Amino acid sequence: MSTTTYMVQGMTCGHCAAAVKDEIGAVPGVTDVDVDLVPEGASRVTVQADGPIEDSQVIAAIAEAGYELAP
Amino acid sequence: MSTTTYMVQGMTCGHCAAAVKDEIGAVPGVTDVDVDLVPEGASRVTVQADGPIEDSQVIAAIAEAGYELAP
Repeated sequence: MSTTTYMVQGMTCGHCAAAVKDEIGAVPGVTDVDVDLVPEGASRVTVQADGPIEDSQVIAAIAEAGYELAP
Repeated sequence: MSTTTYMVQGMTCGHCAAAVKDEIGAVPGVTDVDVDLVPEGASRVTVQADGPIEDSQVIAAIAEAGYELAP
């Protein structure tokens, strides 16, 4: 089990959050994704996995959905 | 042919615009839907149809997508 959090910028609505959840959820090992949406700032994305996961895969999934990590 | 415009509030991103376009596009007679997205205000939605359309059907489609007309 692992839990990792990421701060993601640019998500403005529930559709954005759903897109990010879908993409991260497709990363091997990921069992749950939770998004605490902050439309005007950085949203906290919490990723549960059944083992260690590669940050680079999660970040690539976030990019695939059209967003990026907060600076 | 008819062209009707609606001012819709609450759309914040391209996903919102796509959801509204999908719902309005399913109204009988509608041939094209264009959204001029204004994330912090009212977005102009322009609906083309091959004949007269019922406002109530378009407004219901907007509501189905989760939004409403600007006051």
